Parts: sequence; structure tokens; C-alpha cells
Amino acid sequence: MTFFPTAAAFLSSLSALPQPDEAARSAAVARQGQLTKPPGSLGRLEEIAVFMAGWQGHERPRLDRGRVVIFAGNHGIVDRGVSAFPASVTAQMVANFEQGGAAINALSRAAGLDLSVVPLDLDRPTTDFTVAPAMSEEECLAAINVGAAVAADAPDLIVLGEMGIGNSTSAAALCLASFDGSARDWVGPGTGVDDDGMARKIATVEAGLALHRDALTTPLETLRRLGGRELAAIAGAVVAARLAGVPVVLDGFICCAAVAPIAAACPDILAHCLAGHVSAEPGHARLLRALDLDPLLSLGMRLGEGSGAATATLLVRAALAAHDEMATFAEAGVSVA
Amino acid sequence: MTFFPTAAAFLSSLSALPQPDEAARSAAVARQGQLTKPPGSLGRLEEIAVFMAGWQGHERPRLDRGRVVIFAGNHGIVDRGVSAFPASVTAQMVANFEQGGAAINALSRAAGLDLSVVPLDLDRPTTDFTVAPAMSEEECLAAINVGAAVAADAPDLIVLGEMGIGNSTSAAALCLASFDGSARDWVGPGTGVDDDGMARKIATVEAGLALHRDALTTPLETLRRLGGRELAAIAGAVVAARLAGVPVVLDGFICCAAVAPIAAACPDILAHCLAGHVSAEPGHARLLRALDLDPLLSLGMRLGEGSGAATATLLVRAALAAHDEMATFAEAGVSVA
Repeated sequence: MTFFPTAAAFLSSLSALPQPDEAARSAAVARQGQLTKPPGSLGRLEEIAVFMAGWQGHERPRLDRGRVVIFAGNHGIVDRGVSAFPASVTAQMVANFEQGGAAINALSRAAGLDLSVVPLDLDRPTTDFTVAPAMSEEECLAAINVGAAVAADAPDLIVLGEMGIGNSTSAAALCLASFDGSARDWVGPGTGVDDDGMARKIATVEAGLALHRDALTTPLETLRRLGGRELAAIAGAVVAARLAGVPVVLDGFICCAAVAPIAAACPDILAHCLAGHVSAEPGHARLLRALDLDPLLSLGMRLGEGSGAATATLLVRAALAAHDEMATFAEAGVSVA
Repeated sequence: MTFFPTAAAFLSSLSALPQPDEAARSAAVARQGQLTKPPGSLGRLEEIAVFMAGWQGHERPRLDRGRVVIFAGNHGIVDRGVSAFPASVTAQMVANFEQGGAAINALSRAAGLDLSVVPLDLDRPTTDFTVAPAMSEEECLAAINVGAAVAADAPDLIVLGEMGIGNSTSAAALCLASFDGSARDWVGPGTGVDDDGMARKIATVEAGLALHRDALTTPLETLRRLGGRELAAIAGAVVAARLAGVPVVLDGFICCAAVAPIAAACPDILAHCLAGHVSAEPGHARLLRALDLDPLLSLGMRLGEGSGAATATLLVRAALAAHDEMATFAEAGVSVA
């Protein structure tokens, strides 16, 4: 299915975004006020339950069909020495996901979430963005539509993750193109490059911005020139989930960077998204501030794959359990303050 | 069973505390280094797995038999207007726990933990500590031993929580007796008192310290003069768990305050404890710093009952799942950096 047949269709969807169901939200807020606890005493767990109620349109939201989707892509800029791992690791890790041996497999099982792995043309890396756009418009739109397909059957929640050797450099370029700062503000060690690797990442981001800056006229142009297929797929998934009213949990720096271009143009686009965590990648805290997202977890994670977001989804599960299963003051015969 | 037959036995146990199994810790660290992820990239999830390995004495620790224990007690100081709720709510909430309708019931189920509720002489509140010691030595030691019993069958993990109208005032008194600062530094809104209630809490803490300060010669004297039965039980549970090598997850301000007197005298006592969260109660962040504990969660929770600790135990489960289930680089055929 082609969700967004043209670039114009993708961009125009941003100007007609659905909002949460206020009746369901209000009913959830009222229910929280009747449960056997001091009002507000479950903190963000209460907020999560109300958030989920609004987007699912039910006073008592559920998480029976939650889905982690990992998009994987390869990057031409890897030839510039921007990663601690060779590009072949992307396909090897996709095989590891498919065999069930990666962190995200264990964490998805722990959180009761299904896991889908979506490799995007791994044998056809994007173009090195220091010499030309990473993708053609057609390629970028195809990747956006692959991402958009994940919301088609309206799961209860979507957890987004990525895998792509080299993609923290592409992510830094997207951030620099979308928000302020210098390349140094957005580049970090990723999977663990040394100082020389950091210098190569910074130089790569600066060269990419120097080449493309004047052409970054729309979020889609930014995504196709500096992004990658897995990043475009995440952007497509976030927009399609919003149009379908499906809440999303975002993962770390790279996942959030994938939505930076659309969020810079349309800040409301992330209203249906929770930030699962703030990662150890230095640019992530800065990016979350720019996106106006408050992360649920801060555990020094920096793996990607959706690992931080899947872990955070355990908190969504806890929030919904309390919201759904607790007795009211009246039911329990407890005196109200 | 009487775990600590005398006050001297309880205090002397603090000078011979077992340490984690270094062989199991080292094996767990080595395993983490071989799993298919950049080293360290799961952040605190890796640290939790290693922590659990050390205390359980197994390279691959488990969480099959995890237990939440809520101790409940009543406080003579409630007559001084220190709580937003009447003292009768303690017993009503115990009934709610037993009927399965409280937040901790839902959260324990979500985390796969058994739940035990231990009311301690609810019809016999402690003495108002502004006029006399809250408990006799015999009463305090009895409560400590009730707490100590929770580790007797060596569960995989113990999550500690409390319920007791008025106990945030007692907790503040324990903190002030154990660490520096003023009553105002340790008193907070608890379940939600107004400014007048806050002033009464501060005055109560100050009066208690003025009366007892010169007699606070041991952690047990502090606990019995300013504490409560549920707080003494938590202290007994923490010490007995340590002696049995059982890891513990601590809850919020009140739970942590229960161990403040022993931790001030013996900082190593908390080596087998994780701080589940930092609560919205203002004194908790200060207390965690004094206890040298780094909380796993910061969600603005302030309910007690073990609710924050039970929620945090979901992260322990995630950590152990990744540690146990992930493939190594060799198993998965992934190139090492």
C-alpha cells in the first residue's frame, strides 16, 4: 500500500493532524481522581494512562497488541570512517534480530511486544551525502511508505527503533539541519568511535550541510538529502501513526533525529509520541529539549534497536495496569481526604 | 522465628556484612562484554544484571520468586494533624491491599511479583514521639524481627513498601536524626497536606528531636524513639536480606528513611539495595544523596506502598532478560568492532 503517493501528499498531511479524543481523556482523568490513592500520586504513570486514553479513544486504554518495529538501512557515508563497526554489521544484526538473539528481542519479550524487523535495501546503501543527496525523492518516499505501513492495522502502540551502521552521523546532520547549534553539538561517539572518528563524523556533517543547506526547503528534502532509508521510514511511521490515532514510543538519538525535520516544521506532529528515554549519546538530551519531549527513562542506554523505547514501554504497561485494575475509593470503602 | 533476639544482636550484625560473590559478578561482566551490542550500551541495565549476579551468586541471575512486602503501622503523632488522611485509612488501605484493589496490587501483577501485606498492631499506634519514645525497645525489636522474616526463604528479590498514615513525619524525624539539615529540609507534603499541615509536621519533627536528641546513641534507639513499627520492620528486612544475600529494591522517601539510621552508622549496609525511584516528596532526593543511592526512575510518584519500587522492578526484569537471552557475538556471527 502506498500511504503517501507523492511528496506533496506527505507534506500536506502535516497540516491536518487529528487530535486526541477529549471525551476519553476527560473520562480517564476523572477515573484517576477516584482511584484509591492521593490525587496525582502516581505521577507520570497517571499522565501516561491519560495520554493513551486520548489517543486510543477509550477511558481504559489497552496494550494487547503492541508492536516494536526496527527499520534497518545502510549508509554511503560509512566509507568516510564514521563508525566503529563495518557496514556489514547492519545485515548481521538484522539476522540476529530475526534469530531472536539481540537485546531488542529480549526486551520486546519482557515488555510483551511483538517485534517486526524491516530491512530497507541493505545491499544498496544511500549515496554519501557529502557528494550528492543520500536518496532520490522516489527512494525517500518509498522508504516513508514502508514506514507508514506499520500503522495500517491500528495496533495499540508502536515502538520505533533503528539499526544502521553510520546512521548516528546522518542523524546529527538531520538535527543540525533542523535546529540550531554546530555539528559538534550534535555529533557523539555513537557505537563508540574514538577522537579521530569523532573528528571524521563532525567533518562529514559539516560537509553535508555545506553542500545541501540551500536546498533544505521542506522536511522531505532534508530527509532525502541527509537521511537514510530507515530514518525516512521512521518519519513515515510517526506521521501515519498520528493519522491513524496510534500512540508511539520513540527510542534514542537516531530515532528522534529521524522526526527532527518534520517536527521543526510542524511541532505538533509529536503530540502522540512518548520519548522512551534519554540516551547516553550527548546530542539526545539537546534534541529532546528541541522536540519538547520529556523522556520516561534515563538509564545511560545507547544501543538503538528500539531498546530504550521497548524498556520504557514497561512503564506504559504499569501505567495501564494501575489505571485499569485499581479500585475506586467507593469500591474499596476507603475514606477520601 | 526471632532473627535478632536482642538489640545487641541486631547492631552487631552490622559489623559482619556479607559481600557480593565476586566470581559471579566477574562472570556476569564478562558475559555482558560478549553479547551482541557495543560494550556498555545497555547502560544501567548492564549494571543491574551484574549487581543481581553478585548478590545471587549466579552468572545468570533470575527473578522467578520476587516478592513485594508492604509493612503497615499506625502513628501516635497523627493526633497532631500531620496528615491529610485520618488514621483509619491505614487499616482501610490494608484491606484494599488484601482485596487486590490498590496501586501496588496492579503494579506487582504487572511486574510478576508476589505481594505480602504485613499489618503491625494497627490498633495500637506508636506513642506520640513529642512526648515519649514511639516504642519500647521490645516493641521495636519485635517489629524488626517481623521484617527480618521476609528474607527467611531466600526469594530472588525483595521489594519493600510501607503504608502508615502519619509516617512521612516520622520519616522526616529519622532523616533529621541521621543526617544534617533542618526539619524543613526533610518535611514535605506527604499525601498532600496544606501549608498549615506542613507547619504542624515541621513543629512535630522539631519537638521530637528536641526531646530525644541526646538519647539517639544507636540506630536502634533512633528507630524506636522516632520511628514506627512499619519503619522498624523495613530496617529489619533490609539487614536480614543482606545477611541472606537477597537483593532489595527500596521505594520512596519513607522506605528509605527507615534505613537512614542504620545507613548513617554503617554506610555499607545498602550495598545490596537498589533505589527504585526518586519520588516527588522533596526530601527524597536529598535522602538518596545522603545514602549514596542513584534512583532508577524519576516519575514524580509519591504514593508509597512500594509502588515506585515495584515499577522499577520492571527494569530489573528487562535487565535480566537481556543478560540471559541475548546471543553472543560468536553465537550470532556478528563482527566485533
